[in-house]
Amino acid sequence: MVSVSPLHAEVSSEEYARLAPQVCAMIEEWMREGEREDAFVTPYTTPAEYRSHLALPLPDEGVDDAQLMEVMRSLLKNSVNPWTDRFQAKLYSAPTVSSMCGDMLLSAMNASVHVFSGSPVLSMVEEECVRALCSIFGFGTDADGITMPGGSASNTLAVQTSLCCAFNGAFRRDGIWGLVQELSRIGRTGRGARPVLLTGVDSHFSLDRAALAAGLGTDAVVHVPSDEHGRMRPDALASLLAEMTSDPAHPFGMPFFVNATSGSTVLGAFDDLEAIAALCQQYNCWLHVDASWGGPGIFSPYLRSTVLRGTHLANSLTINPHKLLNVTHQCSFLLVRESRVLEEHAIHAGYLFHDTHTPQKTRITDMAAKTLGCGRRGEALKLYLTWRKYGTRALGEHIDQGLRLAQDVLARIRTSPALEVGPLAEPLFLQICFRPRTTISPASAANGVHTPYASGSAATRAVHAALLQQRHIAVDFAPTRSGDYLRLVIHPRTPPEHYFALVEEVARLASIE
Amino acid sequence: MVSVSPLHAEVSSEEYARLAPQVCAMIEEWMREGEREDAFVTPYTTPAEYRSHLALPLPDEGVDDAQLMEVMRSLLKNSVNPWTDRFQAKLYSAPTVSSMCGDMLLSAMNASVHVFSGSPVLSMVEEECVRALCSIFGFGTDADGITMPGGSASNTLAVQTSLCCAFNGAFRRDGIWGLVQELSRIGRTGRGARPVLLTGVDSHFSLDRAALAAGLGTDAVVHVPSDEHGRMRPDALASLLAEMTSDPAHPFGMPFFVNATSGSTVLGAFDDLEAIAALCQQYNCWLHVDASWGGPGIFSPYLRSTVLRGTHLANSLTINPHKLLNVTHQCSFLLVRESRVLEEHAIHAGYLFHDTHTPQKTRITDMAAKTLGCGRRGEALKLYLTWRKYGTRALGEHIDQGLRLAQDVLARIRTSPALEVGPLAEPLFLQICFRPRTTISPASAANGVHTPYASGSAATRAVHAALLQQRHIAVDFAPTRSGDYLRLVIHPRTPPEHYFALVEEVARLASIE
Repeated sequence: MVSVSPLHAEVSSEEYARLAPQVCAMIEEWMREGEREDAFVTPYTTPAEYRSHLALPLPDEGVDDAQLMEVMRSLLKNSVNPWTDRFQAKLYSAPTVSSMCGDMLLSAMNASVHVFSGSPVLSMVEEECVRALCSIFGFGTDADGITMPGGSASNTLAVQTSLCCAFNGAFRRDGIWGLVQELSRIGRTGRGARPVLLTGVDSHFSLDRAALAAGLGTDAVVHVPSDEHGRMRPDALASLLAEMTSDPAHPFGMPFFVNATSGSTVLGAFDDLEAIAALCQQYNCWLHVDASWGGPGIFSPYLRSTVLRGTHLANSLTINPHKLLNVTHQCSFLLVRESRVLEEHAIHAGYLFHDTHTPQKTRITDMAAKTLGCGRRGEALKLYLTWRKYGTRALGEHIDQGLRLAQDVLARIRTSPALEVGPLAEPLFLQICFRPRTTISPASAANGVHTPYASGSAATRAVHAALLQQRHIAVDFAPTRSGDYLRLVIHPRTPPEHYFALVEEVARLASIE
Repeated sequence: MVSVSPLHAEVSSEEYARLAPQVCAMIEEWMREGEREDAFVTPYTTPAEYRSHLALPLPDEGVDDAQLMEVMRSLLKNSVNPWTDRFQAKLYSAPTVSSMCGDMLLSAMNASVHVFSGSPVLSMVEEECVRALCSIFGFGTDADGITMPGGSASNTLAVQTSLCCAFNGAFRRDGIWGLVQELSRIGRTGRGARPVLLTGVDSHFSLDRAALAAGLGTDAVVHVPSDEHGRMRPDALASLLAEMTSDPAHPFGMPFFVNATSGSTVLGAFDDLEAIAALCQQYNCWLHVDASWGGPGIFSPYLRSTVLRGTHLANSLTINPHKLLNVTHQCSFLLVRESRVLEEHAIHAGYLFHDTHTPQKTRITDMAAKTLGCGRRGEALKLYLTWRKYGTRALGEHIDQGLRLAQDVLARIRTSPALEVGPLAEPLFLQICFRPRTTISPASAANGVHTPYASGSAATRAVHAALLQQRHIAVDFAPTRSGDYLRLVIHPRTPPEHYFALVEEVARLASIE
C-alpha cells in the first residue's frame, strides 16, 4: 500500500524552508525592478500579446522545484507591476508590507474563520478590527460587523440584511414573495407592491447588482439624480420618497433602503449623510453608506468633521481597507449599528455550529453565522497588522497627505494651457478628471493609426491609447455628464513626482500636432 | 508640506527584504513545532481562555519592526496548528507549500481580477484552471466558470444564475416578483406561484442560505429525503417533482432548480447524478452539483467512473480545491456547462468595463462581468501552482490514497470492541462516523465534572469534550439520524498513524470506568 499522498512526499517545514525564501527573493527582485524609474508598468498592451507570451499548461506530469520557480518568475515578469507606483488606473495601489506579511501568516494558519473553535485568534482579530472601526465611525457599543470578500459583497449583504428587517420580517421565510404579500396587505398594488432601493445615479454599480442578487431585480433600483459635483440631491430624494410612499400603485415600488455614497468611483463625491439620514428616518428606510472608497477618510479629523459627518446615523456601512489603506486584496468590512441585524442570517446547521453564542452575552462568536456564506479567509488580519504597525494617528496623516497631494496635482493641471479640468468633487477628494483642451491628432499620438483629429472625449481616448502603448503610466478614463475624461486617482502613498510626470506627459501628448 | 505618507516612509522593497525573511523563518519554526509528535493542536480549550491570553489593541501610536514581529509570533503561537496533521475537525487540513507560495505572489501583485487589463496573468491563470476543470468534469468546449470566495458563494451564484435563466428571464429585471407574475400567467396560483429549489435533506446548509440570499426565502427550499447512506432518494425526488408541477396551487411552489450533492458534509455521500439529471430534464429544472467536498474525486479514475458518473449533465457545479486538494483558503470554482449563462450577470458600468468581450469570440474577458461582485482576489493561482507542481496524475493518486486510508481506518475501528461505527456512505468516501459502544463515565473522561453515565450521543459528547481538553487531536462530532457521532475526516495527505492514534484514544476513553 502506498502510505503517503504525493502531496505530502516530504516534511512540509522542509519544503517551506527550501521554497519560501526563494519566493521572497524573487518577489523582492521584482519589487526592485518596479521601483526603477524606467520600469514598465505593464509588460504588454493587448490581451492577444499577453496570450502569445505566456503559456499556462496543466499537464499530467508535475515539475521539479526549479521548474516551479521558473513558472512563478514568469508569472511575475508578465504581470502589471504595482511597485512602479505608476499604476494609477484603479482605486488600489501597492500594498503595505505588513499586510503582505499578514497574507503569509494566513497561508500558514490556513484556518477558516467560520467557527471560533477552528480560528480563535483570527476571530478575535476580526472582532477587534470591527470594534475599532465601529468606534471611529461613531457607532455605539451595540454595533457589529464582519469582513466580506469585497465591497460589492458587503453592499449586497447590507441589502439582504435590510430586507430581512423590512416589512415585518417576511423576507427570511418567504423572500420577496413574502414582502409583496405583506405590502399588498397594507394596500400597495401592482408594481407598487415591490420593495425598491434608492441610490445616487453616480453610485457604484454593485448596488444594481445587489438588487439583482437579492431577487429584487435591476428595475427595483431607483437612481436619484445628483448635482454637478456628483452628490446625490437630497431634494430629489425627498420628492421621490414622498411620491413613492403616497401612491400605493407607484410604478417604482415601495422604498425600504437608501444607499448613500461616501467617495464615489469616478469623482470621489460624498453624499450629504445627515440630510439623507433625516429622510430615511421620516420614511422608515434603512440607511446604508457605501464608503468602500471614502471610508478611510474617517481617520482624518478634517474629513470626519466635514464630508463624513453623520456616519453614526447609518444602519450599515461598507469600508474597503484594500483600497485607501493599502491593505492587500481583498479586505472589506460591513459594519452595522445594531448587532442583532446580522443574526437574521443564522441558519441552524447542527453539524457546524455547536456553540454560536457565548454564555455571558448573546453576541455571536461563530463568524459565519453572521453572513450568508460559510468558510471565510481571515482578511481582517491584514488590516490589523497595518493598523498596529502605523497606529491610528498615522492612518489619518496618510489620508491628509493624499488630500494635499490632490490639491497640488490639480494646481499643476490648471497651470497647463493644454489641459482642461473636468467635473470635480466639492470639496476635492482624491480623483481628478482632466483631458486635453486642444484638438489633437490621434494619428501621431496613437502609433500611426490614421483617424480624424480629436477633441473632447475623442481626445481623451486618443491620449489614453497613447499612454497604454507607452506602458509607463497606467491611468483609466471614465464617462461623466460632460464627456469622457482621464480619471486620475491620487494614492496617498504614491510619490508626487509620478503624478507630475503624468500631467506633463498628457500635456505633451495634447500639444502634439 | 509633508511629501510622503507614513505608509510609505521607506522604499518598499527594502522593507520587504527586511521583514519577509523574518516572517518566513517564524512560519518555518511554527511548522516545525507543529510537526513534533508532542505538539498541541490547540493552545487552549475555551473562547474565554483564548481571550485571557491574547490582547489585540489598536492604539494611536504604531510599533517598530521588532514589536510587529512579536505581535505576529504571538498570533501564531496562540493559533490552531494545522501542521500537527491532527486537526481533523474540518474538511480542510494543512495546505500545500506551492499554494502558500501562490499567496505570496498574490500579495506582491496585489491585482484585482475584475478586469483583464489590471490582472492579465491572473485572468489567464483562472481561465486555464477553469478550462482544465471543465474538461475533466466532461463539460464541452462551451463551458465556463469563475472562482468564488467559498463554496457557499459558488452555490449561491448557481442559484442566482439559474433564476436568471428560468421562466422567460423575468428575474433579471423584475426579480422574484417578475417570476411570480410569469408563473401566475401560466396558471400557477397562491403559494404555488413561488419558484422553489429542491435539495437533499443531507445537503449543505448553504443551499438554504442561497435561497435566503436570492430572495426566495428559506421556505422555498424543499428537502428531499435521503436513504440510509445519506444519498438523496431519486424516487422521492420524482414524486415531489410530479406532485408540485401537476398541482398549480401546490403549497411547496414550482420547482426550477435541483441541487445534487457529491460528497456530503457529514457522511461523504454522493447523490446519483444520472438519475437526478434525467428527472431534471423531464421537469425542466436546472441541475446544480454541489461537489465542494467530493469534486476533486474526479481526478481518481475509479471515482470518476462510479460515484461521479454524470457530472457532465450538470448545468453548474461547485468544487472547492481548498478542501481536498489542500490549496490554501479560499479557493472555490463555480463551473457552468454553457458559457452564456454567466453573461446574465453583466451590468453595464462604463467607468469599469471598457472591453468586456474579445473581438474574435463573444467570451467575456473581464472576469467580474461574470459574477455579482466586482474586485476579486486571484485565488485560482494557488490551485494552478499546486496542479502544475504535482501534475494531473498525482492529484488522482492523492485521492486514491485517501480512499485506501479510509478503508484502513474503518477496519481498525471495527476491530475495537469498545467502538461502534455509525452511518456510513456507500461506497465509503472520506468520513467515518463512530462512537463508544459501551456505556462510559463522562466523569472520568471529562476532567472531573460529575455527570451521569453516558451512552450513545452522550458518550459521543463526553469523548469529544475529553479530546478537546487533551488538545492533542481535534475532531468534530455531528448529528445523524441515529444520534451524534464523532465524525472523522480522512485527509489524504495526513499520515495514517495519526488516525490510528485517534481511534486508539477514543477506544481508551470508551473503556474508562
